[in-house]
Amino acid sequence: MTRARALTDRDLDLIDAYWRAANYLSVGQIYLLDNPLLREPLRAEHVKPRLLGHWGTTPGLNFCYAHLNRVIKARDLNMIYIMGPGHGGPAAVANAWLEGAYSEVYPHVPQDAAGMARLFRQFSFPGGVPSHVAPETPGSIHEGGELGYALAHAYGAAFDNPDLVVACIVGDGEAETGPLAAGWHSTKFLDPVRDGAVLPILHLNGYKIANPAVLARIPDEELLSLLRGYGHRPIMLSGDEPADMHRAMAAALDEALDEIARIQAAARSGALTERPRWPMIVLRTPKGWTGPKEVDGLPVEGTWRSHQVPLAGVRDDPEHLAMLEAWLRSYRPEELFDADGRPVPALRGCAPAGERRMSANPHANGGLLLRPLNLPDFRAFGVAVDKPGQTSTEPTRALGAYLREVVAANPDNFRIMGPDETASNRLGAVFEATDRVFTGERYGTDEHLGPRGRVMEVLSEHLCQGWLEGYLLTGRHGLFNSYEAFVHIVDSMFNQYAKWLKVTRRLPWRRPVASFNYLLSSHVWRQDHNGFTHQDPGFLDVVMNKKPEIIRVYLPPDANTLLSVADHCLRSQDLVNVIVAGKQPSPNWLPMDDAVLHCARGIGIWEWASTDGGGDPDVVLACAGDVPTLETLAAVDLLRRFFPELRVRVINVVDLMRLQPPSEHPHGLSDAEFDALFTVDKPIIFAFHGYPYLIHRLAYRRAGHPNLHVRGYKEEGTTTTPFDMVMLNDLDRYHLVMDVIDRVPSLGGRVAHVRQRMTDQRRVMRAYTREHGEDAPEIRDWTWPY
Amino acid sequence: MTRARALTDRDLDLIDAYWRAANYLSVGQIYLLDNPLLREPLRAEHVKPRLLGHWGTTPGLNFCYAHLNRVIKARDLNMIYIMGPGHGGPAAVANAWLEGAYSEVYPHVPQDAAGMARLFRQFSFPGGVPSHVAPETPGSIHEGGELGYALAHAYGAAFDNPDLVVACIVGDGEAETGPLAAGWHSTKFLDPVRDGAVLPILHLNGYKIANPAVLARIPDEELLSLLRGYGHRPIMLSGDEPADMHRAMAAALDEALDEIARIQAAARSGALTERPRWPMIVLRTPKGWTGPKEVDGLPVEGTWRSHQVPLAGVRDDPEHLAMLEAWLRSYRPEELFDADGRPVPALRGCAPAGERRMSANPHANGGLLLRPLNLPDFRAFGVAVDKPGQTSTEPTRALGAYLREVVAANPDNFRIMGPDETASNRLGAVFEATDRVFTGERYGTDEHLGPRGRVMEVLSEHLCQGWLEGYLLTGRHGLFNSYEAFVHIVDSMFNQYAKWLKVTRRLPWRRPVASFNYLLSSHVWRQDHNGFTHQDPGFLDVVMNKKPEIIRVYLPPDANTLLSVADHCLRSQDLVNVIVAGKQPSPNWLPMDDAVLHCARGIGIWEWASTDGGGDPDVVLACAGDVPTLETLAAVDLLRRFFPELRVRVINVVDLMRLQPPSEHPHGLSDAEFDALFTVDKPIIFAFHGYPYLIHRLAYRRAGHPNLHVRGYKEEGTTTTPFDMVMLNDLDRYHLVMDVIDRVPSLGGRVAHVRQRMTDQRRVMRAYTREHGEDAPEIRDWTWPY
Repeated sequence: MTRARALTDRDLDLIDAYWRAANYLSVGQIYLLDNPLLREPLRAEHVKPRLLGHWGTTPGLNFCYAHLNRVIKARDLNMIYIMGPGHGGPAAVANAWLEGAYSEVYPHVPQDAAGMARLFRQFSFPGGVPSHVAPETPGSIHEGGELGYALAHAYGAAFDNPDLVVACIVGDGEAETGPLAAGWHSTKFLDPVRDGAVLPILHLNGYKIANPAVLARIPDEELLSLLRGYGHRPIMLSGDEPADMHRAMAAALDEALDEIARIQAAARSGALTERPRWPMIVLRTPKGWTGPKEVDGLPVEGTWRSHQVPLAGVRDDPEHLAMLEAWLRSYRPEELFDADGRPVPALRGCAPAGERRMSANPHANGGLLLRPLNLPDFRAFGVAVDKPGQTSTEPTRALGAYLREVVAANPDNFRIMGPDETASNRLGAVFEATDRVFTGERYGTDEHLGPRGRVMEVLSEHLCQGWLEGYLLTGRHGLFNSYEAFVHIVDSMFNQYAKWLKVTRRLPWRRPVASFNYLLSSHVWRQDHNGFTHQDPGFLDVVMNKKPEIIRVYLPPDANTLLSVADHCLRSQDLVNVIVAGKQPSPNWLPMDDAVLHCARGIGIWEWASTDGGGDPDVVLACAGDVPTLETLAAVDLLRRFFPELRVRVINVVDLMRLQPPSEHPHGLSDAEFDALFTVDKPIIFAFHGYPYLIHRLAYRRAGHPNLHVRGYKEEGTTTTPFDMVMLNDLDRYHLVMDVIDRVPSLGGRVAHVRQRMTDQRRVMRAYTREHGEDAPEIRDWTWPY
Repeated sequence: MTRARALTDRDLDLIDAYWRAANYLSVGQIYLLDNPLLREPLRAEHVKPRLLGHWGTTPGLNFCYAHLNRVIKARDLNMIYIMGPGHGGPAAVANAWLEGAYSEVYPHVPQDAAGMARLFRQFSFPGGVPSHVAPETPGSIHEGGELGYALAHAYGAAFDNPDLVVACIVGDGEAETGPLAAGWHSTKFLDPVRDGAVLPILHLNGYKIANPAVLARIPDEELLSLLRGYGHRPIMLSGDEPADMHRAMAAALDEALDEIARIQAAARSGALTERPRWPMIVLRTPKGWTGPKEVDGLPVEGTWRSHQVPLAGVRDDPEHLAMLEAWLRSYRPEELFDADGRPVPALRGCAPAGERRMSANPHANGGLLLRPLNLPDFRAFGVAVDKPGQTSTEPTRALGAYLREVVAANPDNFRIMGPDETASNRLGAVFEATDRVFTGERYGTDEHLGPRGRVMEVLSEHLCQGWLEGYLLTGRHGLFNSYEAFVHIVDSMFNQYAKWLKVTRRLPWRRPVASFNYLLSSHVWRQDHNGFTHQDPGFLDVVMNKKPEIIRVYLPPDANTLLSVADHCLRSQDLVNVIVAGKQPSPNWLPMDDAVLHCARGIGIWEWASTDGGGDPDVVLACAGDVPTLETLAAVDLLRRFFPELRVRVINVVDLMRLQPPSEHPHGLSDAEFDALFTVDKPIIFAFHGYPYLIHRLAYRRAGHPNLHVRGYKEEGTTTTPFDMVMLNDLDRYHLVMDVIDRVPSLGGRVAHVRQRMTDQRRVMRAYTREHGEDAPEIRDWTWPY
């Protein structure tokens, strides 16, 4: 980057023309069905019948875009644009069209009068494009729907992209959200050497929907204090006179980009040792700037009344119609577009070229830049299993060793995010290969802490999720590990990301990105020590509501299956993979080859545990999840001893989606396969990791469903022991045996005796636990005895 | 409040003794099974086999508690204590026991040696109490599990409690979360006249689980700048020498409380016009203060190694055992507890008396203070309905008029929270009776904005939820209105609150509080204009995973039923009520009396819409939600015309819980009732507001379930028209007719013709929409013609 030459009046005029063009195109999108260039007087029938869109934030977004284009050209910047304000759709589309990128992606919307007409008509129109910045919008990695994630996405994009500058518009509405407020502290996780820069532009236009925005109503001094407290050096400009504001904005951007260049140069030459105070811009302009000042006697520009459509009665009220026409003509479209409706050459010259255009920057279509991970052979990190269930491993610890090698082999495009739980989730081996990223002050006692690590830990699930989203959408890879219960904190971010993926998968020009991988550990069954607040397996229910083609849920029952599943997930694209895995020592069931095969199938009969000799069973015991698998096998052990003649089939489910019909999910088993596994007429006792209803909702169409009885978490728990947790929820081995007894007819005379024994065993176990504070040795030491 | 007298050395010694006692009791809880007073040398068998608990944050919490007790006594303060740091359980319990409140609530844990032994043993022990501050902890309204909500709870408690001071400890870990970061801005929503005060104490002990905390690793100047930016006047103290720190903390508290008193006096006398800069305290002390300095050659006090149990090998390692004993004895228990194990009189004298004790303050058991709402007769706000479906009303607008009167009749204990959507959700009538609360700068153009309103709007669902939780738990009433899709933002807060309620309901000393009422409007079917990101009815699925006894979900189909449901919810206690209601004009189906009866039943046959003449139907059309009800009735209209001989039964569901078996939910219909309504053998086409799986999971045990076919939202949507939304998801009237055709045998020769017509109609409607940008008149103008 080099210092730009001094700006001339002509430069500023050009920027103003570009801004007027973007504003004109924005208003046109909101209002016009026809007569796009106002070649004839505006009539009611030129106006859309339903006016849907948001003007308020748009002129500010266009203003920034025009100025950023100047500095991109002047400095040959590699820059993308994150528009935090949700309703900035018209601005994003207008600029993409002005730059030509829109027509390249959507040739049916060319850069001419017909294209402009189509551009206007399609906006917020059935069969058209959404009113927000959306996956359909070229140049965007940030959906403008739910608010709060602009900064997290911006930083995620900047990590490991040393040449990228991410301009991030933060609306003063969004700034009230928690995730955005937390996002400011990303400054302590950005490395000026390896990472690019984020240039936040806090846009104070003063209002949300119907209220003032908090940050717009505190004194400047207080606001500046806040932003300095976040670690920034703010540059403030304020006003509503375009010429003055153009000059001020150009100066502010030059100052900010000079400062970014200076910081990066110093850091990269080793001259910088302190955490830099990154520049940012505070831009205060009226809401609905350049729009109608007053409508029906009420102030509009500069108030919340500009939020959506400042003139609402255009088709019915000639005065409103005239105001709309005057408003549109105030941008002087005749100077901006030629006879064919194309932007005049001077305007086209304002836009950067090719991939330097923010609407065509490949970082905003990250699949273009995606390099596959270098993945070590996961089999090398597996556990030798001679006989099932004889040895124990902490599954996530085995995974940690594998991830250490993934980290080492991919030093610039793979990150692990987590809220301070990477070690707690027993992935600590990664710290043999890398550090936790931190650019705040460091002490001698700190361990594995440094500016350049691959692991990002911050006590905000929102930031972890948002950073990783930004990182993936710009073409990299990663994993988010979380305590299972607390991943609910990002339910809505997951929802929005799943919606984004659903849409991008249907857009051929959006290239596939690496999948979003969740590793949920410290799960419900082993949060006995942390108590009820830490026990919640319901994220799976949230996940299952999203489009089946992008959702995968895996419940590997042991270390080898976890490794196989993880390898599979890290190779996949355009999916959300959810892996639930334990961190506590638990039995190893499958040798690696069997584990790989089992995971590939996703579901299977465990013949070595079954007693049906491959023939018809009397009962099916199914399980999904590590603890339910353990309890199921312990129940089978009891059943073998009490009812040696009983034919038990054991089914383990790794890939939850296999349970659905193939019409509902691409992984779904056919009815014939399902029936062959589960039978159509035998009792099925299903021990499930999560809330039991989930299994019913997956399997309710199956022939055997009336025989299906599911045990799972039923919202009982406290601070206790692991076995007490399963007893509290009737998922324990003794209860499973009783479930079998209750459902298999003709087990003979021992039934009453066994039932009593099981009841007694539960009582004895409970008493032992209350007395000793831990599980009885026969629980702790149980191994599969066959 | 009056300025305290000067502190003597003896005062400080007493505070130190009290602190040592609390620390001793905390360490005892974490470690000891027996020998509570160390009357004999500590042996391995005195120590718990599983060491579960968190020491790190505890001494800081105890330090603050001791000092707050002094100022409570000196100034006769009405104060409660919010402990943000999650793992502060030992501190909360220790102080409650020291103050005597613990033994009053739990007489089996008396204030003597036997009680102390039980206190120690029960902590984090099966059958005992959780390791976090929990519902079981006297004096708490704030669960220490999931982090982020301390400030929101504190402010919620302070609203409309002018004499209350809420001391709120913010941990530096929690401070990284988004909700906490947003919570600081609550300063702009607190009225010094009508509300009490919050005294935040930011406790920097430097570490989370395994990482430094961000706010502890930025320069003091930057931190102070941040806190000033939040609107505070911070008072900072830092150190590890107890005597110095006692003196500094006492001075800081006096300064802060003097300032609070000054602000409140000025505001209440009318002398204060500006928003005050409220004092707060920054307390920097070592993590694990007064614990082991070094263990096995590694530093512990002042590092993350103090987070949980500093000495982990006590039962096996004699050196660790000796260190534990020395650590415990360092508090000099012999000076603190008498021969019977009671706190010595001087210590008991440190605690305030009666309800001034923070562990016994009735605000922390808000049901004690609960006054029922003055509720106007909701019937007066209803709509006259002569014939079903002839007129339209915006249901939430009718509700708004009712809420206006609720607000007016309850000026000090009812608040409405929402993220800037009260007007958008068409509850705007409330602004005839009250303002939006805002204490930031106000302009002349602002409307309904003031310091003393009943409506709280901030663009943070987290804050809305957290404020209302704090408000309800201190004995008041309220309603949270949200866009349906974005309530997912608080999924995890809902989960935690539901867990809290589940536990409190089982504690007889916890008095019932008013229910948490959600009004979800701007729902999935009418977010056609805002697009896919705004379409998500999945909150209901999250809600349904919680304990049935505290969960209610209502889907009133029109204005009158909404009023009846709202009245019912506002009268209820200890529940979470979720109401889903539309804001767009939609048909009025039921006269008020019928509406009340229908809501009381929760489910019922709409005979006026059915054609089975009260006899056996050929098909059951069920519906839940306003839009599904409309489409169902429109489908019935079509069926009447095409198949006049078809006997159709129409069932409307208001109370979703009625569908569950009574074994699963107290509102559940018996099988006999369910079968009588839905039949056991006739096809059931169920048009549902949310994801269709939810109905299956509620009804899968019913005899008629194999015949149940559910239509609902299947994650299809974009910016389009309302009818296109239902068509995209096959919930439209035409598709429902086809569903009936597909499932009712022997409809005669017209079937093929009708199916074709329905298919054609869908095509025609879609084409109209794409052409005109709105729904066809026959959709918009349809009314129930009978």
